This record gives sequence, C-alpha cells and structure tokens, in this order.
Amino acid sequence: MRIIKGGITAARGFLASGIHCGIKYKKRDLALIYSVIPSSACGLFTQNRVKAAPIKVTQSHLRENNRAQAIVVNSANANCCTGSQGIRDARRMCESVAGRLCIKPDDVLVASTGIIGQRLPMKKIKNKTALLVERLSSLASLEAAEAIMTTDTLPKQISVEVKIGRAKVKVGGIAKGAGMISPHLATMLAFITTDAAIDKRRLKTALEDAADNSFNLITVEGDTSTNDMVLVLANGLAANKVMTTEDFKVFRKALNFVCLSLAKMIIKDAEGASKFVEIHVEEARDIVQAKKVAFRVANSPLVKTALFGENPNWGRIAAVVGAADKAVRENGLNIYLGAEKALSRGIKVLGKGVALKADQQKLCRLFKRARIGIRITLGLGKFASHVFTCDLSDKYVEINAKY
Amino acid sequence: MRIIKGGITAARGFLASGIHCGIKYKKRDLALIYSVIPSSACGLFTQNRVKAAPIKVTQSHLRENNRAQAIVVNSANANCCTGSQGIRDARRMCESVAGRLCIKPDDVLVASTGIIGQRLPMKKIKNKTALLVERLSSLASLEAAEAIMTTDTLPKQISVEVKIGRAKVKVGGIAKGAGMISPHLATMLAFITTDAAIDKRRLKTALEDAADNSFNLITVEGDTSTNDMVLVLANGLAANKVMTTEDFKVFRKALNFVCLSLAKMIIKDAEGASKFVEIHVEEARDIVQAKKVAFRVANSPLVKTALFGENPNWGRIAAVVGAADKAVRENGLNIYLGAEKALSRGIKVLGKGVALKADQQKLCRLFKRARIGIRITLGLGKFASHVFTCDLSDKYVEINAKY
Repeated sequence: MRIIKGGITAARGFLASGIHCGIKYKKRDLALIYSVIPSSACGLFTQNRVKAAPIKVTQSHLRENNRAQAIVVNSANANCCTGSQGIRDARRMCESVAGRLCIKPDDVLVASTGIIGQRLPMKKIKNKTALLVERLSSLASLEAAEAIMTTDTLPKQISVEVKIGRAKVKVGGIAKGAGMISPHLATMLAFITTDAAIDKRRLKTALEDAADNSFNLITVEGDTSTNDMVLVLANGLAANKVMTTEDFKVFRKALNFVCLSLAKMIIKDAEGASKFVEIHVEEARDIVQAKKVAFRVANSPLVKTALFGENPNWGRIAAVVGAADKAVRENGLNIYLGAEKALSRGIKVLGKGVALKADQQKLCRLFKRARIGIRITLGLGKFASHVFTCDLSDKYVEINAKY
Repeated sequence: MRIIKGGITAARGFLASGIHCGIKYKKRDLALIYSVIPSSACGLFTQNRVKAAPIKVTQSHLRENNRAQAIVVNSANANCCTGSQGIRDARRMCESVAGRLCIKPDDVLVASTGIIGQRLPMKKIKNKTALLVERLSSLASLEAAEAIMTTDTLPKQISVEVKIGRAKVKVGGIAKGAGMISPHLATMLAFITTDAAIDKRRLKTALEDAADNSFNLITVEGDTSTNDMVLVLANGLAANKVMTTEDFKVFRKALNFVCLSLAKMIIKDAEGASKFVEIHVEEARDIVQAKKVAFRVANSPLVKTALFGENPNWGRIAAVVGAADKAVRENGLNIYLGAEKALSRGIKVLGKGVALKADQQKLCRLFKRARIGIRITLGLGKFASHVFTCDLSDKYVEINAKY
C-alpha cells in the first residue's frame, strides 16, 4: 500500500468540484463527486432520532439498488427540522444535478451540514448547479474537501493505492469534522471513492468494519449529529478480477487506512484542539465495558481541560473511571500516563487504586507534548478498546459561543 | 416557614468553626460542626466506585447506630486513592477531634474535598485541632462554610424556621459545589443540622426525598465524584412532640427548601457560570426518560456554549434530544425557549420536529437574561422532570486547566 495524491479523485473515473454558491458569505459551500459510470454504493448514517432531510433522501435513493453515480453536498445549512419542505429541497438538489449530468435523480446522493432549522436557499444552489458540473475535474479533490467544511480549519483528504491481482486499485476520501467530536453532535461527513470491482455485500461489510475502527472510535455510538453520513462509491474501473479472500483483505486494509487517516485528521482539527489524545482501556470484562470507560474519560470536561492546561491531574481520570461503570473495582485500577505510541513506557501513577510516587517533573514534561497517551487497566477481564480524542480549550468555547 | 439567620448553627445546640490549618496557602481549610448532645444522623454518599477514605470512615461510623455529635471537614485535599494510609488518616482526624471534645471517635463523621492522590498533611491538621475546637461558636456558620470551599467563589448557607406543634423547629445547612457540576465530578458536600426531634427512619426518608428534588437534579445519578456527601444531624433540642403526619410534612418542606436553596447556590456559583438554566422535559414515557433527556441537554457542551454565547441556537438542543433516547420521535418533538419561571410563555421554536418562524430579536433578548428556561415536550407520554444547570464559559476552561 502506498499513499498517493488525488484524494476523492484518485480512483479512476472519479471527478469532483467545489464552488461557492452563496450559503456561506465567501467560501466554497457546494461540492459534487461524480463517477463516469454508475457505481456500487453504500453508506452509514446517523443514529440520531432527529434526522436531517438529506439523510432520509440518500437512504431512500440507496435502498432501491445500492447504486449511485454522484454525491452533491452543501455546507453551512443542515436542512434539518425543515419538515416536508426540507425533503422536497433535498430531492430537488438531486434532480438539479441529475439533470445537468444526464443521469437519474435516484443515482444522486445528497448530504448537508451546518445550522439546523433553516430552509435551504434553493435558488442559490440551483443557480450554481451548471457551474458545479462544469467545474468537475480529476484535480479538484481539494476544492470539494473545502466546500464541505464548516468550522474545520483545514480540508481533509487522503488516498492510497494497493495491488489486487495485477490491477492497481485506488481508494481515496474526503471528510469534514470539527466540533469537540467526542461530546460532539458536530456533523461528521466522509465520502470515499474507489475503482475496485467489488460486490455490494462485501463493500458494505468492509465499510462497517472500517468505520468501527476509525469514525466510531472518535464518536460515541448512537450519539451522532442529525446529519452524520459516510458514503462509499466503487465503480469497478480498476478492472481487478473477482477478489479472493486475500484480495479482500488487501482492499479492507486500504479502506481502513483511508478511514482511520480521515478520523485522525478530524480529531487533530477539532475545534480549538491543541492535543491529540489516545485513551486505552485494558483488562475490561468485555468490549462494551472497555469502550464505555474509554469514552467517558475522553468526554470528561475535567479531564479535557486538565489536558489543555498540561496538568497531569490523573485524579480526575480515576474519578471518571469510578463513575463510568458500577463493575469498576477501586483496588483493581491502574493508571499509566505516557506518550502516544509509547504506551508500554507510560508512567504508572495509580496502582491498585493507590497513588504512586511518580516523578512530577517527568509527568509535566509528558503533558507538554502534542500527543498524549492515557492507559487504564481495570483488572476485571481480558478485553481492551481505545478512543482518540482532544483537549478542551478556551478556543473551543469561543468558537461555539459564536457559531 | 421563614428564612432565618444562622446557617448551620441556627438550630439549637449546634456550634461550628472554620479555621486555616495550612493545607491551603492562606484561606480557611478546616471546619467543625458540633452538637452539644449526640444527634440522630444519616447521610447520602457518592455512587462512584472509587471512594475517598472519609466516605468509607463516615459510612462505618454511621452504620453502627446512626448517631453522631460532630463533623470534621477539610478542603484542598480529597484523601482519595490513598489506600489504607488514607483510612488511618481519616480515622485519626475523627480521633483527634473526639479527644478534644471528649466524645467517642465513632460519633465524629469526616469529609474531605480537593485534589486526589495525595496524603493528608496530618501534622498540620492535628496541630490545629485544639484551635478548631476552641473556635466553636454559634456565630461561626460562615467560617465553616468558607472552610469547606474549593473553587467556590462564595460560601453557601441557609436556614429556616417552622412551627411543629408549639415548638419552633430550625433547619440550616452549608454546602460547597463548584465544578461545572453537570458533567461534574467536582465534589459536592452539604451538611445540614436541625433541632427537630425526629426518629432516624423518618430522617432518612426525608433526606432522600429532599436530595432527589435538589442535589440529584443538579448531578447525574450514579455519576458523582469520589467524595460527594450529604449529612444531616438532628439533635431534638426543639423538644417538639412526636411528629404527626402533618408535622412530618412541615419538617420535610423545611428540609426540602434548605436542600433546594443550597443546590441552586451551587449552580449559580458553578465554575465560570454566567447563566442559571432550567431545563424542563415533558410528555415523556416515564420519569427515567424525562431525566435522561433533561440531563443530556444540560450536559451538552454545544448547548452550554450556545447559552454562554447568548446564542439561541436551538438546533443543538434538537440534535441532543434526538441522540439522547432511541424512543424519541422527531415528529412529536416541540421546543420552547422562555425565561425561567415563565415557561408557559416560552417562545415555541420547534413544532412537531419542524422549525417555526420565531421572532429572532425576541429570542436574542431572551438569551441575554441571567436566567434561561428551556422546555422540551416529547409527545410520548405523561411524565416530566427538570434539571438545573449553567452555561460553559471560557472561564470554566481557564479555572480547570490550572486547578
């Protein structure tokens, strides 16, 4: 596997564009992703009970045949809590693009992100659909990545190439995140394209697995925004032979890498974030418990502010772990603070529920790094999980007070 | 019922003191509450699985006979994650006070709040026990309230008088809070005294009920700090006759008022808080669901920062409600924004899941107030609950980054 250029347009037959249509004051706010031939398609959607109109429309377009040829996305307006009018508007976005591309409206998927409760400015969008299609290019991945941003400070894209049989298969993607992500409800969108020839069932399996090891490690399960969406299109233009089990593994590795890279970019660019934090929970009774504890630590404002303050106040971690699950036993609990990717060399600060004498200067140096690792062992079983998160800064408050 | 002066020393036979022993740099950090005769006593304790030593010692002292005559409290050190040494230290605090007061160590209860993982400076505490007892006075409630503070900016005390038969019965208390309280894990301590003659079973019932309608509405159940404790002492010196059912109601009303007053003071003085926010959830399937939704909205950093920014971005509320419970139905959801205590006149912004045209200027004015009410109706049933919370400010981050 090698990282290549091209992002969402790296795979053969994919074009993209990103333009300004006027929902934002000045910046790009409308994106299009297009495959020259119809693609296999599948998606993962928010578990939120309040669902934006584009979620409903995209789900209905996929339900029929798991096929799509284009994705149209706007930022700065979520088209959520907009009732039947919102549904009509989302459909019109698809129709408008489909008309210009001479494809079926059902083969166009739609996504939105931004403020909730306002009608989409359909006139602005329709007026620019011709331009949006005109600008389609194999060099415009970055423009598309920019057009889906809200409070993101950087566009997010990645692409890789793997060999499947004799064929070179490419997988690429763009994403937007922002929000504190962990206690989140800030919309996460990710779009992935590949020229792999792969059947729809396998594509879905691979996407679910990749998301579980990437996007779902940065957001609590079932606790997503009204607009969250991950879509993948596979157009088969790499012309690889039917994948063997080994080939499928290679494909999954590529897809996992793309998803994890995008997920990490989202955390690094989270609103006001100054630290990338990896929280490992080990010796849990089961995966559910490990995840629960990891997410509770990751979401604790007291832990997050201590990380921002570069203050190795691990007592807050112990307190959060104790409150996270009734099965936690104080005298089985260990906490290690260590640099990310060097967790085994972490400094043990709590042993069997009792504070240990740790080198305070060393701990303070550790907390000054941009990447911090926290390891918690529960002494209850054999299961482990981890989660990526960031700190909570004054900048986060500033951004979200205004936005 | 009338509000009277005196706080924790308002009830007959109760004395208090608050001094500086040297755990904090300069401010008071050691408090004593004392009844001239042994009192009925009961308490409520943290559900956290990591429990501080004073929690364990106080629980064991109460278990025997539900009796106590004194409460000793230190701030600035939680005596938590301190192992068997911590237990010995907490016991010694009781013994030291008991020795000076010539009472049994078992009749002394102990509480701590502050940093986790450091041994109590026992020498400093012991050296000042004589002074602590010497300073006992019926005028020193405020000193005691000050001595239990951590990042609180104001001491918190209240007392009331009610008539039970011919007797005047007094109930008073002090508390400390701080922390964002809702996503909390900042220690909450509350101590309440009364001269009512009341049997222990009734005292416990009344305390549990009062806490459910006050302290438990500002903190998620089972998700408390390592040191949370609410204690009540009743010494019977009001010499009221055995309470009738009516009398018991009067007593409960007084206790409820004291607890709710202290709980509200805690929210108003939460770290960096600039708004007092009341969140009402109605038409829930059951109380558990109503509470769950209310707490999720109250704990959402995105909602809290919008409140701080005086930004009536109710879309965030809708998104949090949709993520809070799988039973939520988008087309049954209404949201009203209104001034606290005037909820019926709230402005409806979401009707059956669809945004309504609300007067934006009016909403902005509303969000500039110091007290804000949010009302959410789920359309699922007949149950309701509410929760008190505050906003999330840059000051909160500043305080917690350093502390």
